[in-house]
Amino acid sequence: MSLDPQANPSLGLPAMSRRVRADREREYHVELVDDLLGAGVDRLTSELDGRRALVVTTPTVHELYTSRLVDALRRHNETISTIVLPCDEATKNLDKVKTLCEQAIESGLDRRSVIVGVGGGVCTDLVTMAASWIRRGIDYVRVPTTLMGQVDAGIGIKGAVNFGCKKSYVGTFYPPQSVIVDPAFLNTLCARHVRCGIAEIIKIALACDARLFELIESHGWRFREIAAHTDSAELREIIWLAIVRMLEELEPNLHEDRTLERVADLGHTFSPMLESATGFRMHHGEAVAIDMAISAALAHRMGWVDDASHERILTALIDVGLPVWSEHATLELCWHAIEDAAVHRGGQPNVVLPSGIGEADFVRRVEGICRNDLEAALRAVERRAGDGSAHD
Amino acid sequence: MSLDPQANPSLGLPAMSRRVRADREREYHVELVDDLLGAGVDRLTSELDGRRALVVTTPTVHELYTSRLVDALRRHNETISTIVLPCDEATKNLDKVKTLCEQAIESGLDRRSVIVGVGGGVCTDLVTMAASWIRRGIDYVRVPTTLMGQVDAGIGIKGAVNFGCKKSYVGTFYPPQSVIVDPAFLNTLCARHVRCGIAEIIKIALACDARLFELIESHGWRFREIAAHTDSAELREIIWLAIVRMLEELEPNLHEDRTLERVADLGHTFSPMLESATGFRMHHGEAVAIDMAISAALAHRMGWVDDASHERILTALIDVGLPVWSEHATLELCWHAIEDAAVHRGGQPNVVLPSGIGEADFVRRVEGICRNDLEAALRAVERRAGDGSAHD
Repeated sequence: MSLDPQANPSLGLPAMSRRVRADREREYHVELVDDLLGAGVDRLTSELDGRRALVVTTPTVHELYTSRLVDALRRHNETISTIVLPCDEATKNLDKVKTLCEQAIESGLDRRSVIVGVGGGVCTDLVTMAASWIRRGIDYVRVPTTLMGQVDAGIGIKGAVNFGCKKSYVGTFYPPQSVIVDPAFLNTLCARHVRCGIAEIIKIALACDARLFELIESHGWRFREIAAHTDSAELREIIWLAIVRMLEELEPNLHEDRTLERVADLGHTFSPMLESATGFRMHHGEAVAIDMAISAALAHRMGWVDDASHERILTALIDVGLPVWSEHATLELCWHAIEDAAVHRGGQPNVVLPSGIGEADFVRRVEGICRNDLEAALRAVERRAGDGSAHD
Repeated sequence: MSLDPQANPSLGLPAMSRRVRADREREYHVELVDDLLGAGVDRLTSELDGRRALVVTTPTVHELYTSRLVDALRRHNETISTIVLPCDEATKNLDKVKTLCEQAIESGLDRRSVIVGVGGGVCTDLVTMAASWIRRGIDYVRVPTTLMGQVDAGIGIKGAVNFGCKKSYVGTFYPPQSVIVDPAFLNTLCARHVRCGIAEIIKIALACDARLFELIESHGWRFREIAAHTDSAELREIIWLAIVRMLEELEPNLHEDRTLERVADLGHTFSPMLESATGFRMHHGEAVAIDMAISAALAHRMGWVDDASHERILTALIDVGLPVWSEHATLELCWHAIEDAAVHRGGQPNVVLPSGIGEADFVRRVEGICRNDLEAALRAVERRAGDGSAHD
């Protein structure tokens, strides 16, 4: 008998107890491809490998791209179904995931089938959840079509929907089979969404890659006329470096269960409350940009970054047309955000501040930030925002 | 730059590709305890460790046990909420999981909180799914109150609900923090549900533990008057050995992604279709018993087990009052079940048959089973069922 001989002292009985390892080995790959809708479609067909597939997409993406993509896939593979789903934050809920599951049954998906999500962050969220639910988890492929998705939200393993009045209350960690990134989708992305993606690229550069930050400083203007540059080597390099740096930060803590200190949380201290305070009229990337400006000013005030670096950070944000200030960024909101971060990060706020270009560090305790410094930082950013950009 | 220098031959461009490890390390423990509602409650309080907890239970279990359990917990811990949820196969659906999530919000559960599921298989399924959803996954503890739950369904990591007309179409693999088994809950379990649990114990004994099979043969009658024996050392030994053997079989393949050959699938070749053919009026354990009788007769016919072992298997089932035959077990249904198993097990039916007492092997190809042998096996079981048990 393989009973554990360890005694249970409180009962005087032999404890019958057994530990069970429930590790799950998973791997996925992220790839920057070229001409996915043309010659590059074989990258996607090789992922499907003849299996039945359901392509999930949004009305806009379908009109511009997916119908062509599905035609190309069907020439290789007979068993492609499509569902076009309006995807926005207001309707990112469980009913949409149910709709995907119903479509999966209707399309005859089985355990071996694949879902392909072609769209922005909401589309990826819904596909991630549906794939994790169906038959307790089937394969799925992410094809992010926004810059934010290509360098940030779309390359990880998270999916969530809003529930009741709680944002992203219900969700999952569920790795895709692969993420396929084609910058050509950015041709038709509106300028505001391009800027929001750049905010995340600046974030990861500022937090951990000085060279990427320099590339953005010298080539960032290309994002302003992105349609003319999606096949340029420099732009591809910027996007790919941002992806690689982001993955390096995500990989050791993909399930967010190993550490509560993440430099990729730079720009995410004040931004959740800012978005919320504007009723989500402010986009996530805009809030991240304002958060970075405040964080940089606070770091400057605290002596973590020098004058020149501080100025470079603000200039990089302003140069690509990102906001650095909002009237919603009150001292009360920002202070409350720090306290709230502590609640979400196991008692410590772990506020990420730049400690140079390409470097960041943590303020681990609420008392580590002086309210006067925060107030002075907010005033400094407000003034700088009023000045506008010298390069504009 | 850490770009992958591997060339993409189809495009003539450097491939920008990166593999990401998404392994998740998890461990849980399964424990047979004593007097959980009394002195043993500290086992549960130590699992909760002062965290806010939501206890999920069913009306019957609540009336008999959980109110006492919650009182005992509250004496140790101030933050216990309870939800009593009717749990049956007919209403095992997504709406019930949503109800749990709503209650979780109302009870103020956060990332660090715990759900405790005290009930049968449906309760465990719903709790597993809700815990996996909330904040992308919070801790939960399983306290199975049925014998089936204690030795089989409740000790693994699966949860699922019915969706549309598909049984368990939507679900998850999500390990609990722990499983706490107290045989005292069996005191009030109806005889039919006790028998269904024994079917799974006989299954695991027949598949891989001759000594456990002998214990059932000599002590199995105690299950017939279980209320008088839930604290007997022999009964605890049978239950614990069944748990340990089941975990040994489950552990290497908990996510069912490593092999499609599982000896614990014994008794699960014909049983799904049998249950379905009776509109689920036949319980799972009863179908498993009939399946084992048919499998044993087929193995006997094919020369895998001798006369004596064949008779022991049938006698063990009949002695505890389990059915070994149903008019629904037609040749057509059973043959179709083998073909269907092949569909669900990657093209090979992997029919598990006993190759002795405590041993099993696989028929890997549909052609490995002769239709005439199956028909003869069915006739043999039908005759034996007509004879009744010599020991009854």
